[in-house]
This record gives sequence, C-alpha cells and structure tokens, in this order.
Amino acid sequence: MTTRSLDLVKSGDFKVIGKRPVRHDGVDKVTGRAAYGADIALPGMLHGKVLRSPHAHAEIVSIDTSRAEALPGVHSVVTYKDLPEPSEGTTELNESGVQATYYKAYNMLAREKVLYDGHAIATVAATDPHIAEQAARLIDVEYKLLPPVMTCQQATAPGATLVLPDIYTDTEGEIDAEPSNITSHVIVEEGDLEAGFAQADVVVESEYNTATVHQGYIETHNATARWHEDGTLEVWCSSQGQFGIRQELSDLLRMPVSKIKVTPMEIGGGFGGKTTVYLEILAALLSQKTGRPVKMTMDRAEVLKGTGPTPGTWEKVRIGARNDGKITAVHVTLYFEAGGVPGSPLGAGVMTALGPYSLKNFRIDGYEVLVNKPHSHAYRAPGATMSEFAVETAVDELCEKLDMDPMEFRLLNASKEGDLRVYGPPFLRVGNIECLENIKNSDHWQTPLEQPDEPHLKRGRGLASGYWMNGGGQSSAQGRVNPDGTVTLLEGSVDIGGTRTSVAMQMAEVLGIPIEDINPIVPDTDSINFTGVTGGSRVTYATGYAAYEAARDIVRQMIDGMADIWEVDPDEVEFDDAVFSTNGQTATFKEAAAMLEQEEYGILGTATVSPSRAGNSFSVQAADVEVDTETGKVQVLRYTGTQDAGIAIYPPYVEGQLQGGIVQGIGWALNEEYFYDSEGRLRNASLLDYRMPTTLDLPMIDTIITEVPNPGHPYGVRGVGEVSIAPPPAAIANAIHDAVGVRMRDLPMSPPRVQKAISENAAS
Amino acid sequence: MTTRSLDLVKSGDFKVIGKRPVRHDGVDKVTGRAAYGADIALPGMLHGKVLRSPHAHAEIVSIDTSRAEALPGVHSVVTYKDLPEPSEGTTELNESGVQATYYKAYNMLAREKVLYDGHAIATVAATDPHIAEQAARLIDVEYKLLPPVMTCQQATAPGATLVLPDIYTDTEGEIDAEPSNITSHVIVEEGDLEAGFAQADVVVESEYNTATVHQGYIETHNATARWHEDGTLEVWCSSQGQFGIRQELSDLLRMPVSKIKVTPMEIGGGFGGKTTVYLEILAALLSQKTGRPVKMTMDRAEVLKGTGPTPGTWEKVRIGARNDGKITAVHVTLYFEAGGVPGSPLGAGVMTALGPYSLKNFRIDGYEVLVNKPHSHAYRAPGATMSEFAVETAVDELCEKLDMDPMEFRLLNASKEGDLRVYGPPFLRVGNIECLENIKNSDHWQTPLEQPDEPHLKRGRGLASGYWMNGGGQSSAQGRVNPDGTVTLLEGSVDIGGTRTSVAMQMAEVLGIPIEDINPIVPDTDSINFTGVTGGSRVTYATGYAAYEAARDIVRQMIDGMADIWEVDPDEVEFDDAVFSTNGQTATFKEAAAMLEQEEYGILGTATVSPSRAGNSFSVQAADVEVDTETGKVQVLRYTGTQDAGIAIYPPYVEGQLQGGIVQGIGWALNEEYFYDSEGRLRNASLLDYRMPTTLDLPMIDTIITEVPNPGHPYGVRGVGEVSIAPPPAAIANAIHDAVGVRMRDLPMSPPRVQKAISENAAS
Repeated sequence: MTTRSLDLVKSGDFKVIGKRPVRHDGVDKVTGRAAYGADIALPGMLHGKVLRSPHAHAEIVSIDTSRAEALPGVHSVVTYKDLPEPSEGTTELNESGVQATYYKAYNMLAREKVLYDGHAIATVAATDPHIAEQAARLIDVEYKLLPPVMTCQQATAPGATLVLPDIYTDTEGEIDAEPSNITSHVIVEEGDLEAGFAQADVVVESEYNTATVHQGYIETHNATARWHEDGTLEVWCSSQGQFGIRQELSDLLRMPVSKIKVTPMEIGGGFGGKTTVYLEILAALLSQKTGRPVKMTMDRAEVLKGTGPTPGTWEKVRIGARNDGKITAVHVTLYFEAGGVPGSPLGAGVMTALGPYSLKNFRIDGYEVLVNKPHSHAYRAPGATMSEFAVETAVDELCEKLDMDPMEFRLLNASKEGDLRVYGPPFLRVGNIECLENIKNSDHWQTPLEQPDEPHLKRGRGLASGYWMNGGGQSSAQGRVNPDGTVTLLEGSVDIGGTRTSVAMQMAEVLGIPIEDINPIVPDTDSINFTGVTGGSRVTYATGYAAYEAARDIVRQMIDGMADIWEVDPDEVEFDDAVFSTNGQTATFKEAAAMLEQEEYGILGTATVSPSRAGNSFSVQAADVEVDTETGKVQVLRYTGTQDAGIAIYPPYVEGQLQGGIVQGIGWALNEEYFYDSEGRLRNASLLDYRMPTTLDLPMIDTIITEVPNPGHPYGVRGVGEVSIAPPPAAIANAIHDAVGVRMRDLPMSPPRVQKAISENAAS
Repeated sequence: MTTRSLDLVKSGDFKVIGKRPVRHDGVDKVTGRAAYGADIALPGMLHGKVLRSPHAHAEIVSIDTSRAEALPGVHSVVTYKDLPEPSEGTTELNESGVQATYYKAYNMLAREKVLYDGHAIATVAATDPHIAEQAARLIDVEYKLLPPVMTCQQATAPGATLVLPDIYTDTEGEIDAEPSNITSHVIVEEGDLEAGFAQADVVVESEYNTATVHQGYIETHNATARWHEDGTLEVWCSSQGQFGIRQELSDLLRMPVSKIKVTPMEIGGGFGGKTTVYLEILAALLSQKTGRPVKMTMDRAEVLKGTGPTPGTWEKVRIGARNDGKITAVHVTLYFEAGGVPGSPLGAGVMTALGPYSLKNFRIDGYEVLVNKPHSHAYRAPGATMSEFAVETAVDELCEKLDMDPMEFRLLNASKEGDLRVYGPPFLRVGNIECLENIKNSDHWQTPLEQPDEPHLKRGRGLASGYWMNGGGQSSAQGRVNPDGTVTLLEGSVDIGGTRTSVAMQMAEVLGIPIEDINPIVPDTDSINFTGVTGGSRVTYATGYAAYEAARDIVRQMIDGMADIWEVDPDEVEFDDAVFSTNGQTATFKEAAAMLEQEEYGILGTATVSPSRAGNSFSVQAADVEVDTETGKVQVLRYTGTQDAGIAIYPPYVEGQLQGGIVQGIGWALNEEYFYDSEGRLRNASLLDYRMPTTLDLPMIDTIITEVPNPGHPYGVRGVGEVSIAPPPAAIANAIHDAVGVRMRDLPMSPPRVQKAISENAAS
C-alpha cells in the first residue's frame, strides 16, 4: 500500500521516480565483478597485520619490536610513535578538534595504556600476510594490568577506576575540577518539568540497559595505501565516504587534504561503522616507512574487537500523563558508553528520544561515560534505538496504567508540523500521524491475534514508534552527456543501499530519459567535489538534490547549445518531455546530444548543494511474538513497519531499508550483545557466538510506504535509511509484555533473561 | 638563447609561464611508483597471448584451435570470427567509416589472408602467460603461400600481385574500375606548374626512398580488459588518448562509447604509434568470452612486427628556380606504403612537403600503396620526415646548381604570414624566417667547420628546414579548488611529454598561484569531457587553452562566492595577482578558498574548447658530420636546432622535444630500417638488430627556442612536439654531400650505402 500525496510536486505523473528498474550496480555485484577493497593488488605491495591487546585495561610498560623486525620478510613495524604528535605541525583544528584527534590517534594505536581487549598496539608490514601475522606475534609487550571498567554503572560509581587520567566532565561548557569517567553531561530542557509532573495523574519511572552491539556488516575492514616520494598519499578502502576518510587521514597525519587521494571501493555494508579510519592510517604509516604499497584486511574477530560497535547504555525514563492520556512531563536520563576514548552517539540519542511526541515539559540528561570497551561508534540512527527503546517501553507501561490503547495514546500525543523539537526549529511537515494511521489501518493491526493451543506458548502484540532527524549537508554531482544521449553521472556519495540508482533516477526525471541511460559512478576524491558521508539517511535527499541541480545545468547548457545550432535566442528554445524545440524545429534529447557532440560542445552539468531541510522521518511498527514460557525463547510471528519516505524515489529500496532496519532491530532486541568476562575480555568475537538473526529466525517483514512529501526537496524526498531500526526493541518488549505480562527493560531479551523474568513474575 | 616577443600577451612578466619548476609526474616516475599498464592486477585475471603469422602473404586455408583449447589452463581462443561483422549491428559510421572499421578489424585479426609477417591470427587466454603462449603455438593454421609485395615500386608495377582483392584507386573521389594496390591518389595543385617550370633557369629532378621505421617507444603495448555481464567494458591501457581507444573499441565492437570506460595508464612513449588499439580489442574479446579480466602485453618482437611502424616511401621531386634563387615551380610525387590494409600518413606528408616555402606554382601527387608490411601508422610529424627529406635534399641540390648559399636561398623563399598553404587558409603569423635567422646567427653556423688531419675523414655541414601544421581540436579540463587553496586539475590529455605541467602552468598563470599548488591528473573517459588524442603537437595548445578557460571559470565562481560572503555585487569584486578584493576588504586565493569551503561552495571550473588556430610550427637545423670514406660511417659532430615555440610555457620541454625529435630524425637518417628478406620476413625484430641511436652515437644537441607568439592562443602557445624530427635526414644528407660530394637519396644513410655511393662517385 502506498499513500501518495503529490501536491508538493509539480507533476503527478513521474516518468522515472517511483518505478522499479534494475539497479545499476546489481549485475556486477551478483556476478562477482564489483571491485571491493580486498581485490586491490599493486606492484610491490606488502601486507600489514595488527598486534592487538589481549587485555581490557593495562599500562604498557614496554614494546620491543626487535624480534618482529628481524623476521625475514618483515619490512617495517609501526607503533604510536610513528604518528605525528597532535601538537606538532600545522593544523587548523580548534582545541577540541586537536583533542579529538589526539584520542582518535590513541584509539588507532595504543599509547601509555591499552584501553580495551583488541586495542591496536602495533602493526607490521611484510611480504605476505602470514609473515606479517607471525611477526606481530613476535612483538614483545610488557603490560601492567589494571582493573577493567565495563559498565556505565561501574564507571560512574564513586571511586571508580579512571579509564583515562585527564578527562574532566564537560557539563554544557562547564568543566569539572576533578577527573572522571564522565566525559560530558548534556542537558536539554523545555517548559517546567516539575509543574508538568504535578499535573500528571499517572507517572511511570523505570530503568533500562542495552548491550554493546555491532553493526555486523558482511565485509570486514580493508585498506591499501601508497605513499609517494613527493609526500602524497593514495588510499583505497571500504568506507561510507571517501571525503571523511580523507579528512581523518589529514587530521591524523597533519597533512592537507589536497595531498591525499581516497578511492572508495564497493562497500559490503557499513551501517554507520565505516565512517572512520582504522586500517587506513596504519597502512599509510607502513607505506610511508617502507616506501611500498601496503594492504591490510581484518578478520571477523578484529572487526568485533577492534572497530566501533555501538555503545551499551544505562537509561532512566520518568513520564507522567493525565487520565485523558495527554503527556504532561518526561524526564529521560541517558548514560552512553564511549568506550576507551571520548566520543559516542549520545547527542543523537538525546535528540531522538522524544521525537514522536508533542511535549511542553521535558528534560533530557545525557552522560557519556568511558569504559574499557572498543571506542563506540554510529550504528544506523545512532543513539535512537537505545533512547527510543527506553521511552517507547515506558510509554507502553504508561498506557497500561492509564488503561489506554497504545495506538490511541500515540495518536493523541503525536508530534506534528509546528511542534517543538528537542533541537532545531519546529517540525516542518512530517508524517508521524500518517504513519500511525497506516499501521492502525493495516491488515496486521486490524487482525486479532489468536493464541496457540500449547499452554506454554503465549502470544502478544506490541507497538512502537521511531524518530530520526535525517541529515542534509553538502553533496556534489556531475552529469556528462555522451554522444549517444546517455549520461555519465558522477556522484560523490558512496553507494551502500543502492543510491546510485535512487540518485540517478532524479537526474533521469529532470532529463526525461530512461534510467538505463544514466550511468552512475562513485569517483575518488580528486574527481568530484566534496560530498558528505553516506549516513544520516542523507544521500537520496542531498546527493539526489545535487543530481537534480546538475541535470538542470545540463538542460540549460543544452538549450544554449541548441540555440547556437538553430541560430535563435536561448529563450526561444524549450525543453519539455525530453524534447528540445523552437519554431517548429525539434530534437529529442538523444538527437540533441549527437548534434552537440558533432559541434564539439562538452555538456557537463555540475552541482554542489547543501540542502538543510532534510525532512524528519518517522516509523511506526507492530510486532506479534510468541513466547515459549518454558525456555524464554521469543519468536517473531508477524511484523509490519511503515515509515514516511516523503516521496519514494525507488520503492523497493524503501521497502528494503524498512526490512533491513527492522531485522537489525530485532537482532538487537532478542540476541545481539558483546559478552565480556570478568576480566573484560570479549568472549564471543565471532559470528557464531555473536548471534545475529538469520532468515530462519524471522518472518517476512511487511512494509507500508507512507508518503508525506518533504517540502525541503524538489521531489519531496525524505531519507529512509535509518529510522526503522529504532522501534523493534520496544515493539517486541511491549509484545512480550502483552504475551506474558513481564516488562523487559534490558536488551537483549534473550531466552535466559526472558525465562528468568517470567519465573520471577510467577514467583511474585 | 631565447627570442621572446611578448607583444601579443597582455603582460610581459609571467609569474609561472616560462619558468622551470619540478614536473609533477617526475618523482613518481623516477621512484618507480608511476602506474603503467603492466602493473595492473585484477582478481581472477587471465593472461592473453597472440599467435602471429610467420608469412608475409598467404591464404589461411584453415585454423584449428582444438589442441590449444584442450591445454589445461586455457580458457578461450579468439579468432576474427569473434569480432562483430562490420555490416552487422547498429552503427552510425558512414560508408567509408564502415570500410575503415572492416580493415581495422582485418588488421587486428587476420581473415581470409595474412597480410604481413607478424599479422595477428588468434589469441588465447589462459591462467598464466606461459600457458597462453604455449597454447598459441598449438593452434594449427594451414597456409597457402602467396608472393609478397614489399615496396611501392613492386606494388605499383604492371601486373603486381594484389595485396587485397577489392581495393580500387580513389583519385580525388573518382573510383577506378580495376582493382589495384593503390588505395588512393591525392592531388594538390596551385598556380600553373608548366608555366612555372618554363620560368625556371635551373631545374632539379630526383628520386628518393625512405625505409619503414618504428617509433621505438620504450614501453611495449599492453592492455587489460574486463567485460561486465551487463555488456559494459572497462579497459586499462597505454595509449596516446583514452577517448580514441574508446572510439575504436566502440567501432570494432559495435557498441556505444557510453558502454566503454578506458583508463589511461602512464605511457612509456608513443610518438604516434599508440593512437590505435592492438591488444585492447583482443583482451576485450577474450574477456567477453571468458567472463574474466584478461591482461595482455607484447614483447619487443611483437611490437616491431605487429604494430604500426611508419611507412617506407618512394618519392620524386622536380623543382625549378630562377637564377636569382626564386623558386618558380615544384612538383612532388609521393608513394607511401599503407602496409597490408588501407591507411597511412600520406595526407600529412602531402600537407607538409612544401611548408617552408612561399610558392605560386606547385603540384603534389600522393599515392597510398598496399604492401605486405605491418599497417603503417603515425610517427611524430607523420609523413613530414619523408616528404621534407626529399624536398629539402632537392633544395640543397638546387642551391648547388644555383651556386647559392642554402641559408640565403631559404630566407629568400621562406613562407610567411599571408602566404598560401598547401591546405587551409593562408599562414597566420609564423616564425619560419625567425628560425632561419636564429640558426644563421647561431654560434654553430657562424663557426667555420674545420677538416680533420686524417685524409679518410671528411667533414661537411648541412642545413634543412621543417614544417608541421600543429593540431587544435577538442580538449577538456576541470579545476577543483581545495580548501587549502590548491587546485586539483583534471585534464583529458594523456601526458607523454610532460603536459601535466605545461597545462597546469597555464591554469596557475591565470590564478596567480604557484605551480606546486596545482595537482594535475589524467582521468578515465568517465571522469572528464571528450579530449582529442595526445598527438599533432596539440596538448599544450588546446588542453592548455582548456585549462586557461577552466581557470577563468574558477575565478568567476570565486568572485561570485566572495561577493556573496562580502554581501556586495560580483561586479564590485576584483581579482588581481591572486587576491580578491572589494571596498578595502581582501582575501588571497588561499584565504578565499578556505572561506568558500567553509560556506560549502564547491568551486569547480570546467571547460571544453575546440581552438582551431593552432599556429604552424617551423624548425631549422644545422648538422656537422664527419664521414669515414673507408667505411661509410657517418658521425654527427655538432647539431643545432631551433623551432618556433610561440611562447615556451615550460622551456625545458621545448628543448627536450627539440632534442628528442632530432635524435629520432638522426636515427632515421643514419641507421633505422625494417630489414626484410626475400620472403618478406622481418629479419631485425629486436632492438639489437633494429639500430636506434644511443647516447654514444650522438653529440649534445644544441637548441634555440624561437618565440613568435601564436595569435590563436591566449598565451601565444604553438605546439612543439613534432616538427623537429623532420629536418635531420635532409640536414645530414646535405652535410654528407658537403663532406664527400655525394647525394644520398635513400634512407637510411647507413655505412654500406654511404660507402657504396662514395665508391661509385669516385669511379664515375
């Protein structure tokens, strides 16, 4: 079902948008020809491997690389000493930027301490990867073990061991005098919280915990670097944005971006985890020292231990409402793990926590906390899944106390155009209510849930909302018209979810030509203007906007050219439905392309845009689950999600993003967690033991595309990549409660935890 | 010595032009990091090798590939049957284009006949090159030998064996009824030839022959192709132009250019010989059949036998003058070998033959002749070296008869602005006379030649002029301004002779920034607009022009952006000496770049130009030689050349091009030739036996840059890449005559030939 509201768009009948063509990158990917970072081979190339810490927290007393360096085939060993000191050299970073670079460097290569199990300490380049691996094991590191700090509760307890010695809590710009594991305390407050709670007839207050989880992309990290004698650097890698990698390398290496060329290879999944360097900097340093190209790849254990999972959290929600169901006040407290160095998705968690609701009085306290885990990083709608899990579960609890239908409660309290947001200007036109109504009217929601005959199996239904801001920002596109009337489209955004096609479709729509006539390419940093990261659900919106503008530039240039050929004023040439015309003369786009090529015009439409009205996105999801009360196993029986796509440029991708996000959210809800032992060592660093859902665990996910056009885009686009991951944990927690009457407030809701909750509930 | 006339240029003091900075590509080339085609490695890559004909002329009775295909490791064998038939499929080629493609395909893979020793017959892809080579030898070909036709004289003799059965001479559009080895007869005629000869007091008439010679680039041909399942093709290769390779593949494969992406690798020399496909098409066909990437490289013997040397010729010159030295009439007859299929540099030979002279009455007859040799191709000033050798030697002979100094004769008859040209409009401003005067005034020309004491050693001095049209045509450039104020310059021209720098300097001059701040890149066919071949001495002229225009586009965009930032009208912003300013506010180029980046402008200057007034180029050269009358060995003692560079953008390249062209011309004059046996087999297919000059054979070549700015370029540029190769054979022949009194009319003037001429002269 598609609810299409096209009043914001000039024409109701798109030629290309909304269709379901074969995606441009599909054939190469299914036939194995697409070029990934692991495919790179350069003459004289060496292979790098990393020595990683086996300890969660320890001082490094000494590092002796001599045995490694003596191994035949070894060319060089790099430690943190090979990185430029953050204070050295020229940099335009501000002070906090310098600090950020210092800790980023610290995370790349451990300095005085190792900060987590898997922290990189040194890296070796050798003639083959096996020798490099053997050499890495020959590096002798003397450690002095320190007690690991593994949770927000531990880290913030009085007298807690400090993960870093020189971190002082920053509370909205005010710096504490004493060092702490809390790096920052963010406060967002509107209205009068206590007055709000005073108006409440019912108040719910609960605590929540979520586990550290990994983005779980299929392709492991890889990077190849070639340092040239003239001080320039080339890098090939898998990332969510060649320009972001270039900037981080520039910061870490203290060299201008113009000396660095990053070529984006195909990416086998990122989900927020590939927006930063890991191997890139190591390969660059090894290449600098050896004078040879150096290639590095991670194995799965290195990915899980040594990259950036999204953080575990400790959360508190206090929410009050009147008996009529109207929310009067909410107070949310979020503790987000940063890992071993500062930085986390806390800010986005704060911004999204209360997005679905129209509120007068609220406060959010956000704390970022250092722990001895890998440095936390973004994961699809970063921060939202954790904070919205807490709020959406509390809302369900509130509905229970109010004896109110959770759908009606959400419709009553839904945020809408003009409402206050946690940050930024009030909401523009948004589809929150339309999403709620689409689920309310869905076959799923309208079909009563039947209970099975087996008494130990209990079924329940849950509902949850999700909110994500969506990003805009700088994107670039270029369209080159070929003599056969096709267009080569260079776009700056790495294509993870099929955006070659969703961006190309917007160019095709302007030009009125078939999508097959656009050949979209993602070039290196030298061949396209700056373009922001593929993240924030921004590509189809912002890069699509750039393609739209580049297409308009093409039309303008072709009108000028045809005016020359026809010897008329450009004003006298029209372009409509892919035909140029003047005074009875016409030329189709293809004909015009051939004529202009003949006359040696070079038609090249270019655009760099920075659209800022990305249009917020909402998702509403309903889950039916069956709980095995004997084992605690939760089976998802039926699942329906909708999200507001603005206008769905390529509907299969919207459906795919909905399904993909929901599946990841279900994994997060039911199974995924970093499992640490008492010494802070990760015990499930493999995809056998780190349990992601497979198709056998899941029903077909039903999707509904809600289309409320975004007024901030010429075709009404909203980003669709992220919001769908946020609702599943709460939807499933609420469904479990509906099934067996227990409130699950800790993720994952794994069989032992659910079974324990059921047992305790029965005993109480 | 540099004669600089800057009156056509707005400012006499260039900041960048005329300086001698470090070339951008230098460091990578001397440190071995520059990426050549042989460096390519792709996953699953196969290696291709070619089976070549051992016969000069034979029918192919049968080809049996079964033994080759059965060899373990062999993936596929390709013969001409795998090429699309020229009549099949869609094509926009005109009839002669179809014919050209048919013969080009025939040259790629032999059909009914093999047409020369080395003609490719089949190609094999296997898991490694050794298996591929072994398999190629297992292909069984049954031949029926035919008599080889090896010279223009043989080919045009009555009753000559026909090289191709269906060639009918095209005389200025009129087609003969009977087949012939003469493919075309070109006639250019002005004035009244017989009246001109009637006015002559002295007439010289002579015949000349020149040998087939090879361009002798260091890097052998290579190509890697990857055919994708969706029918698109990627090619990496060494060529003088990625767009020309793309077009030829498009023609041969009957697929649109938009389906083909060609990435130009670094090129280790081309000199006209790398403007066409050889291995590219074979690798593409093998990749199409195998579904794998296929890499191919040639060895030296394959290069000499299987590519496109420049043709041997048979030439006649009749020239008459009055006693005062004024030329009254010239008739030139040129026979150029095409090789086994039609096509040769005949046209350019015709156009250049008489370039240095101001003429009223002349006629040139040009014949292109099929012979059983490799298909002839361009070699630096293609055609000019042969035709100008004949004319310049005849002129020397005429001077001898007139008892006139050859310098004064040339000054008297020199072509100049407004004079008739053999083709096209009259000469624009040209530097012919300035070149003559620069040699006349040179230390070399002013210093009398002394004879050695040894009686068997005789010294002589010779003079010759050269003329080359120079090319313009379509070129593209893009300049992307980086946040640090450097500029990434994409230019469509493959860089053979250092044009990254000579083009970048023109952009730097407009922007007023140091040349080190420009990073020039030569991208693939998807990343830059169409740009013509690197040939015709066109790159510094036309691509430089594009860089100039792209730089002006940058300035315009930056003025617009700074006007936005300063909140003034763009008309109020000035740009002078790399500083933007308005009403007392200023920003250097670097500062403006940073400010505009901050504001998310994407400054990208683009230009596609087609300049047509390339400015003709002249070279005048003086040679001193010493002839060993006993052995016939000719030693070049001293050599000075000048050429009109317009304005020398990068003087070391102008000097290098002069020296390089002269060295090649000396090789052509004295030693280089394809040596065929009586069966038409090439007997010297190695660089040991095909004798190119080494540094031991040569003196330091002295150069003089003459600068007569070209009015058809904003900085007065003329191309400098080619003309210098044309004069050496005649200059040396004239010097030999001066030394020992014999007229050498056949190239090369190798020791046996010179010794024989001396003996015959002595006997007569």
